[in-house]
Amino acid sequence: MSYFITVEGPDGAGKTTLIQGLVDRLQADLQVPLLLTREPGGEPLAEKIRGVILDPKHTDLDPRAEALLYAASRRQHLVNKILPALAAGKMVLCDRYVDSSIAYQGYGREIGAQGVAAINEFAIEGKLPDMTLYLDLSAQEGIDRIQANREEAQQNRLDKEAIDFHERVVAGYQIINAQAGDRLVKIDASQSPDRMQAQALVAIKARFPQCFKND
Amino acid sequence: MSYFITVEGPDGAGKTTLIQGLVDRLQADLQVPLLLTREPGGEPLAEKIRGVILDPKHTDLDPRAEALLYAASRRQHLVNKILPALAAGKMVLCDRYVDSSIAYQGYGREIGAQGVAAINEFAIEGKLPDMTLYLDLSAQEGIDRIQANREEAQQNRLDKEAIDFHERVVAGYQIINAQAGDRLVKIDASQSPDRMQAQALVAIKARFPQCFKND
Repeated sequence: MSYFITVEGPDGAGKTTLIQGLVDRLQADLQVPLLLTREPGGEPLAEKIRGVILDPKHTDLDPRAEALLYAASRRQHLVNKILPALAAGKMVLCDRYVDSSIAYQGYGREIGAQGVAAINEFAIEGKLPDMTLYLDLSAQEGIDRIQANREEAQQNRLDKEAIDFHERVVAGYQIINAQAGDRLVKIDASQSPDRMQAQALVAIKARFPQCFKND
Repeated sequence: MSYFITVEGPDGAGKTTLIQGLVDRLQADLQVPLLLTREPGGEPLAEKIRGVILDPKHTDLDPRAEALLYAASRRQHLVNKILPALAAGKMVLCDRYVDSSIAYQGYGREIGAQGVAAINEFAIEGKLPDMTLYLDLSAQEGIDRIQANREEAQQNRLDKEAIDFHERVVAGYQIINAQAGDRLVKIDASQSPDRMQAQALVAIKARFPQCFKND
């Protein structure tokens, strides 16, 4: 029995806020240790790979090469950080995992979900999360939120290409959600952060009751 | 119609010597330009990825992550170097390609040929070579040659782990050869370099007669 939770959703859905809020509540209530992580997660080789992906000089990184690099970074992070933590009985809360690659590379960059799923299966060897919190938000609401954040930062509005990309990512997440069955717990991300956090906590406690102190 | 040739075989088979000899002969006889290349082939992003793989500090690179990195590097090299050269009507002679990953990572590192083939199919999208020169040498003969080269360089003998690895790679190449059909042209690498070179040249001319000047 392992306690491997991922948090997924499109930009603007409030993933970061949810995770920050959740960690405090979990640490207060859990009777097992918690590892909060995200790729590359301080794993030195995964960091190096991530550096290749995100280097702004690399404008001609091919989308399939990018997807392979994400899968390689995921593999290193899984083997050296997540699996040892799970083996030690920790709960692992990971910000993005395979679903992100399928949504962003497979659907967003239009490489195709099946191929991206195949290279990720090679990377994770069946190690899917035990539970995924999927923050569900309409494409338009996501765009409005990203836009608002950008305007605060006095940056330009999203261009058509970025909006089209975002719409494909959201549509991709909806397909993943429809196919994933019990693993995904959908949280309506149009709600307040407090309500999202409360729902997420209830869902985690219901799925892993043995990890929590009896009140 | 493209003219994409790869050269494959285990360490010790004489790949480098063959290629050096072939290039001069091809350049004299071809009526199309020749691109001699090998991954990462001066492609800046593929170089960066290769740097991550080969950095001697990276002793804990997971074998599956390594295979994914090779596939990513291959993709960049294919898209930015090989495909443009083929589109320009050049003959491309590439030192190692997908078969090397299947033999070295799939069989040598025992990840499994099928998985390595799958991530490489994602990387190359069906772009297999039109012809592969496969330098066939028994495991023992390869080991003897590697050993002899090492002793000249006053290094230690191969350890058992390296010998076992080499044997798995050779066995892997033999399986690939049995399955690849017409694409592979087997060259007996126990012959002299001159005879190997002559056979390779005859095979290339027979496969791509339209690329050569009429004598």
